[in-house]
Amino acid sequence: MQILLLNGPNLNLLGTREPEIYGRTTLAQIIALVEAEAAQRGCKITALQSNEEGELVNAITSAKTNGIDAIIINPAAFTHTSVALHDAIKAVALPTVEVHLSNVYAREPYRHNSVTASACIGQICGFGPRSYILALDALCKA
Amino acid sequence: MQILLLNGPNLNLLGTREPEIYGRTTLAQIIALVEAEAAQRGCKITALQSNEEGELVNAITSAKTNGIDAIIINPAAFTHTSVALHDAIKAVALPTVEVHLSNVYAREPYRHNSVTASACIGQICGFGPRSYILALDALCKA
Amino acid sequence: MQILLLNGPNLNLLGTREPEIYGRTTLAQIIALVEAEAAQRGCKITALQSNEEGELVNAITSAKTNGIDAIIINPAAFTHTSVALHDAIKAVALPTVEVHLSNVYAREPYRHNSVTASACIGQICGFGPRSYILALDALCKA
Amino acid sequence: MQILLLNGPNLNLLGTREPEIYGRTTLAQIIALVEAEAAQRGCKITALQSNEEGELVNAITSAKTNGIDAIIINPAAFTHTSVALHDAIKAVALPTVEVHLSNVYAREPYRHNSVTASACIGQICGFGPRSYILALDALCKA
Amino acid sequence: MQILLLNGPNLNLLGTREPEIYGRTTLAQIIALVEAEAAQRGCKITALQSNEEGELVNAITSAKTNGIDAIIINPAAFTHTSVALHDAIKAVALPTVEVHLSNVYAREPYRHNSVTASACIGQICGFGPRSYILALDALCKA
Amino acid sequence: MQILLLNGPNLNLLGTREPEIYGRTTLAQIIALVEAEAAQRGCKITALQSNEEGELVNAITSAKTNGIDAIIINPAAFTHTSVALHDAIKAVALPTVEVHLSNVYAREPYRHNSVTASACIGQICGFGPRSYILALDALCKA
Amino acid sequence: MQILLLNGPNLNLLGTREPEIYGRTTLAQIIALVEAEAAQRGCKITALQSNEEGELVNAITSAKTNGIDAIIINPAAFTHTSVALHDAIKAVALPTVEVHLSNVYAREPYRHNSVTASACIGQICGFGPRSYILALDALCKA
Amino acid sequence: MQILLLNGPNLNLLGTREPEIYGRTTLAQIIALVEAEAAQRGCKITALQSNEEGELVNAITSAKTNGIDAIIINPAAFTHTSVALHDAIKAVALPTVEVHLSNVYAREPYRHNSVTASACIGQICGFGPRSYILALDALCKA
Amino acid sequence: MQILLLNGPNLNLLGTREPEIYGRTTLAQIIALVEAEAAQRGCKITALQSNEEGELVNAITSAKTNGIDAIIINPAAFTHTSVALHDAIKAVALPTVEVHLSNVYAREPYRHNSVTASACIGQICGFGPRSYILALDALCKA
Amino acid sequence: MQILLLNGPNLNLLGTREPEIYGRTTLAQIIALVEAEAAQRGCKITALQSNEEGELVNAITSAKTNGIDAIIINPAAFTHTSVALHDAIKAVALPTVEVHLSNVYAREPYRHNSVTASACIGQICGFGPRSYILALDALCKA
Amino acid sequence: MQILLLNGPNLNLLGTREPEIYGRTTLAQIIALVEAEAAQRGCKITALQSNEEGELVNAITSAKTNGIDAIIINPAAFTHTSVALHDAIKAVALPTVEVHLSNVYAREPYRHNSVTASACIGQICGFGPRSYILALDALCKA
Amino acid sequence: MQILLLNGPNLNLLGTREPEIYGRTTLAQIIALVEAEAAQRGCKITALQSNEEGELVNAITSAKTNGIDAIIINPAAFTHTSVALHDAIKAVALPTVEVHLSNVYAREPYRHNSVTASACIGQICGFGPRSYILALDALCKA
Repeated sequence: MQILLLNGPNLNLLGTREPEIYGRTTLAQIIALVEAEAAQRGCKITALQSNEEGELVNAITSAKTNGIDAIIINPAAFTHTSVALHDAIKAVALPTVEVHLSNVYAREPYRHNSVTASACIGQICGFGPRSYILALDALCKA
Repeated sequence: MQILLLNGPNLNLLGTREPEIYGRTTLAQIIALVEAEAAQRGCKITALQSNEEGELVNAITSAKTNGIDAIIINPAAFTHTSVALHDAIKAVALPTVEVHLSNVYAREPYRHNSVTASACIGQICGFGPRSYILALDALCKA
Repeated sequence: MQILLLNGPNLNLLGTREPEIYGRTTLAQIIALVEAEAAQRGCKITALQSNEEGELVNAITSAKTNGIDAIIINPAAFTHTSVALHDAIKAVALPTVEVHLSNVYAREPYRHNSVTASACIGQICGFGPRSYILALDALCKA
Repeated sequence: MQILLLNGPNLNLLGTREPEIYGRTTLAQIIALVEAEAAQRGCKITALQSNEEGELVNAITSAKTNGIDAIIINPAAFTHTSVALHDAIKAVALPTVEVHLSNVYAREPYRHNSVTASACIGQICGFGPRSYILALDALCKA
Repeated sequence: MQILLLNGPNLNLLGTREPEIYGRTTLAQIIALVEAEAAQRGCKITALQSNEEGELVNAITSAKTNGIDAIIINPAAFTHTSVALHDAIKAVALPTVEVHLSNVYAREPYRHNSVTASACIGQICGFGPRSYILALDALCKA
Repeated sequence: MQILLLNGPNLNLLGTREPEIYGRTTLAQIIALVEAEAAQRGCKITALQSNEEGELVNAITSAKTNGIDAIIINPAAFTHTSVALHDAIKAVALPTVEVHLSNVYAREPYRHNSVTASACIGQICGFGPRSYILALDALCKA
Repeated sequence: MQILLLNGPNLNLLGTREPEIYGRTTLAQIIALVEAEAAQRGCKITALQSNEEGELVNAITSAKTNGIDAIIINPAAFTHTSVALHDAIKAVALPTVEVHLSNVYAREPYRHNSVTASACIGQICGFGPRSYILALDALCKA
Repeated sequence: MQILLLNGPNLNLLGTREPEIYGRTTLAQIIALVEAEAAQRGCKITALQSNEEGELVNAITSAKTNGIDAIIINPAAFTHTSVALHDAIKAVALPTVEVHLSNVYAREPYRHNSVTASACIGQICGFGPRSYILALDALCKA
Repeated sequence: MQILLLNGPNLNLLGTREPEIYGRTTLAQIIALVEAEAAQRGCKITALQSNEEGELVNAITSAKTNGIDAIIINPAAFTHTSVALHDAIKAVALPTVEVHLSNVYAREPYRHNSVTASACIGQICGFGPRSYILALDALCKA
Repeated sequence: MQILLLNGPNLNLLGTREPEIYGRTTLAQIIALVEAEAAQRGCKITALQSNEEGELVNAITSAKTNGIDAIIINPAAFTHTSVALHDAIKAVALPTVEVHLSNVYAREPYRHNSVTASACIGQICGFGPRSYILALDALCKA
Repeated sequence: MQILLLNGPNLNLLGTREPEIYGRTTLAQIIALVEAEAAQRGCKITALQSNEEGELVNAITSAKTNGIDAIIINPAAFTHTSVALHDAIKAVALPTVEVHLSNVYAREPYRHNSVTASACIGQICGFGPRSYILALDALCKA
Repeated sequence: MQILLLNGPNLNLLGTREPEIYGRTTLAQIIALVEAEAAQRGCKITALQSNEEGELVNAITSAKTNGIDAIIINPAAFTHTSVALHDAIKAVALPTVEVHLSNVYAREPYRHNSVTASACIGQICGFGPRSYILALDALCKA
């Protein structure tokens, strides 16, 4: 099973940016963790971080022709505004799980809503890097 | 580890009610599933389903004195309106995970928001009965 | 035909409370009237008044197993706020009619909307105790 | 007892238009049904369908001088916008019942509200052609 | 192919009213233009302008029995408020195109929304009298 | 000077309808009063009352060709909703004054706003039948 | 008859400030005009202009003890925000007319609403300095 | 004088829950304090804490027949949502004072509004346990 | 203990203005009452009534240097709009209690919210002149 | 005449994505169709599809220097959010037509509004690939 | 060059009030700093602080006749509500710069908007006392 | 001191686009001006203009590792919508000043708010190219 792991804008700064909200683990460490856990479940990870909405849309719309079976996405700031990402996930029609490191409901009101989640199977938020592993479980054993 | 498993109003009808949204598994089957998975992780489940907001608040506010270590709650219809449940979770200060069987973001807009989630560690929605098991994982390995 | 007759919070005070809005008939008199009219139509009434939302949800979710064929409900104050009652009526899937003694459109704006009515067949309001008899007609001859 | 039976815009298409919402009965059949039921109750029906708001206002404001005792009105699309119909019903001060074939609460949100109902005794919705007969009962036995 | 060409309130003043928005062509000239272009495409035009909502609803609801195959409508001021016109177009179920002379999005905000367009195939706005000819093309070659 | 005196829906009921708001003077008495006061100022009145929006729009849009110099209009219920009247007044470009018998600001909030007033020179409200005479003064001595 | 003539903030700049909206007449000229017209009607004017809300409230609350019979007020910028002026006019219970030089409905949206007008008999706007004379007429012949 | 002292959901946790907002006094201590102060004023307290809205409604609607003369209520989370409690207080028509330990205006915006207060004589908030004693004074010496 | 007693706009009319809302006691009587009750508690009152927002801000911002220990304020109409009073109370950092004679929750919606209360310790409303004495108690025994 | 044909995010998936909404024609087929129809009208097409807002803005802002005479744009998901595209179209000041394959008014409410259309000449929606050809006609014969 | 330096309500408390937001510099120190910096640029400062809106309006409307060439204003709490200050700045038509010590966008939402800024050349916020010096630069070298 | 100078979408058109709002200076001229003024203050400028949100986010998130000490940003159209830019500025934690050429408060309402400014030290708007120099001063002498 091939899983596309997408991380949205600013997540390249993970570990240094507001650690009281996002923790001290870097994105590289999270990806390594997800890859290891995926290997144990017989899955393979293709990871992409991008600060550009279009690059993420490109990755999603070309996922099927690239042999991808499922997607884990942390859309970060795009969660709340990107109709384009929503349309891309809906269009490619692969099982997709939205994850967030922090509990979005315990933060600013404009972070409570998700434009992208309605195109996904489900959403997992609030468990730090574990959110990604729980998404992996949700997809692998679905 | 003692985990309180709370299910809110109308979930006693699970399996018969709108199966295209909630699936065909009954609440008894879900509880059995969670108990089995909990046993494998060395945890014990105390389950309560109630259609009464006050009964759920009672269960939460007395959880600590009853030896409970963590809570998994599917507040169902109360998710969107119950300030009392929110205050109870905040007051008892035990690690709590909110779960939903369906992807609330893919349903009516008034189901997108959660009054209770901001008092929890995180929220998991959209994976059917698996949502509960993922919550179990989130709590046990946290 | 077995009909469940549900009355919501504060209706136990009918006849004494703000009679210029709700009239001087007591709830006992209304229930007697409905029972007599039901008998003439070959129906039987099971009546419950409760100030507790959960007790009403319990009555609805157990209605089918209790041999109930249809429901007449005056949700009173819960009309405007109870997602749980709405979900219960939808889940049990019995023909249900919502009634109000007063014309809700001629009162405060927050009483114009009904959260519960969309789960019912229809709504009848404004005819005092006759609202219940009209609901009986609507169900018996439907 | 003389009853004015008013039907608003597009109801002349009843029976052919969106039958899954409005049923297959034509307006002529509904009027015949109401006339027959009215005759049994010793009432006489004067029926008018119009697509013009002004024509309906004219019928209402001249009702008293035409010997009308009560009004049954299905304002259709005008329900949600016509302050003029509301004022006319209030001005003529005859007992008036608003009816709808479908359950307006189970349709689009802009159909939930009624501008005209606050000028009526009450409203009955959701019972198909029976809504008219229930209104007849409400007026005859009031 | 018989096409009903409807023009709403105040369009009888076209050519004299605010020409910087609506241009200097009169309604008679537009109708003549549409008739000529329609003839070239083997279609016939029946034109009606009315300042009365009910008259337009009458024309639409009787269109099928009058042998009409399609409708081009410029609802003018009724675009933004007429639920009755919306219902009439939906009820008659003929292919209908909504047109506007000016670009409604470049004018006052209350002109951006259209109550009637959701009952039509599509909407064309901003091209002056050409908007009608484009609608003709859209219907004839559909 | 020829003045068109327009009165909107339900004003034909003046003197009998809710006299605590609109007073006991009939529309015929008001028109007679305005005609007498106009004669003293060398003006002539053409009066029209209509419950149909389209008829009022017709009267306005044909006013110039009928030799009218100015308009006094009490749009009644249409004040708050009629984009068509607003457009007609703007299109005909004759000096127009909007009047109301009652103080609209001391009534329901939806009566505070005026869709039509922005197309007029000004608005006068709250002085009963005197509102019409003040409008006459405003136009004659402008 | 003693009339208090109040003018609110910035009206001391009349005649020099934005003459395309307010005209070229100074406040002194307007007051002289009102005094002359008042004299013809046997009334006497006490005029006050102030940029301070409190000073205007003082003038109103002490009006009765100062022998004032009626008030004409142009609250200017305070029209849209001053609950204090509204309460003062209501408390002193003298007949009060609100006037504006320009047509507030043809200006910015935040100028459409009036907090103070609901405490007055009526409002007159859009006739330049004539607005004051029309108010005088409304009060003298009321 | 018999006073019913009602405390809403989660107040059973007082003294342990978020003491920086609610203080360290337990509910038992507050009740003891109110009883002592009441005794000095010749009043008797009947105290009830409940996490169930229906139980509180029951207590209020049966208060008169139980010989209660006045009510002090801290509705806690129900303050902001319970139409049922509002209706109960209005229906029983006993003098009622709403109290809050914390200053609700200095907390989250959704805690500023009170659904229940409009059915009470008045509201006292922000003085910790003293809020109850001030309510006692307000009722005893009223 | 020196207490500054501030009363906002129009309260100088107390006793004559709308007595069904505010009662028949004059401001002088209230101040005398508060002074007497304060003397019994060993406190001294400095009273100021002003219709000018700035004068009240001046009194608050100079309170500390004038030896004031606490403030009781009835901001009247300024309650709902004055950011300046809110900032002044916050800046001077003296214990302040907001009082209202009437129950603001039982009046117009725009009176429900308080801009100033979030800068105070608490708010007391609905007990007529007793509201001031309760505030005195709250401050003296705090 | 050189026409720039722009297609926004996810339109590269046309023909495979939700064909019940967007049809089965691929973007390549649409471009070929537009090129053929353009050739017949003596126009030449430069086509660009991009999932990146900036790339589209670049294409627009450099259009004039690249010899472009007019633009046809289907902004897809960017229609509803891109102030940048709006500003770009306004800045380059070339005649631009906005097109949509589906009738946006018959879809989700957030798709009704267009941020970009107010910078265009007009908008055409609802005619599938024909929307592009109608836009071509509108530009070529304008 | 003569510059009027205006400071609004509560700024007389600068240096003592909430120093974590406003810093520890007093208003006298800021004025001294601005005067020194102004002298270096050949300008002269006339400074006024007032807690009364009217006093500030007076200062602005009389500025031209007092020989003032430009204005620097920190309207403090009046920023968000004072239409009167906005009108005064617009009326006097002198170049005016609005300044704030703190970054208003990083504070409460109701502080984000400025009623007064649209009448100014520009706004500078967030630089502490330097905000005034930057405004000085903006005016002197404009 | 190294300063990153960022300019957002469409600013590459400066000098040709709507010069009555943005002036006739080109972006190249502004950058030259800022570089010259920076040199005088011993600072060095790295300038980037981009129409792509992601490219700007990239520049910000890599600024620290590129030796940048501070940022001046004119986010143009992104000001009002980009949560991603806001998060990037917050994450990189370098002193950042937001600038605008025009006074955003004097333009369309949707330009009044800034999503990005709350992550900056402050904002300067309305002074044309001088806005950049004032930002330079604010950073250099901070």
